[in-house]
Amino acid sequence: MRAVVTVMLKDGVLDPQGKAIGQALHGLGFPQVGEVRAGKVIELTLDERDPQAARVAAEQMAKKLLANSVIERFEVEIVA
Amino acid sequence: MRAVVTVMLKDGVLDPQGKAIGQALHGLGFPQVGEVRAGKVIELTLDERDPQAARVAAEQMAKKLLANSVIERFEVEIVA
Repeated sequence: MRAVVTVMLKDGVLDPQGKAIGQALHGLGFPQVGEVRAGKVIELTLDERDPQAARVAAEQMAKKLLANSVIERFEVEIVA
Repeated sequence: MRAVVTVMLKDGVLDPQGKAIGQALHGLGFPQVGEVRAGKVIELTLDERDPQAARVAAEQMAKKLLANSVIERFEVEIVA
């Protein structure tokens, strides 16, 4: 079972990396770019048959290690 | 229109960050974790009405700036 955990900065938290990407894209000739937010994604292979158990485990991992809940939010997606 | 660009290391490219996350998760009591791959995700707000045009633009951005095609692959998802 595979779990994909996506971690983004919460809305309202300044994102200098996203800002820099946006400015670089403008400079490269993409004027249509508005706000840019940068985050990370972690793909986990889990030795787990039950999708619900895999989701619970991945959420615990996100809370304990992968995301800083003060400034970040996360989403867990379970892939067969 | 929003575009979400996910950039991952290609299969076969060593991923020390993913390795470190996997080892940390084992240490935190998640023995079910197998391979871990770490990547980045960039959410772009685009001033663009047409989903197809938005996809083409986001793919160009990924090729020009967001992904290093030598070692990384990317996926573009268009969100309404």
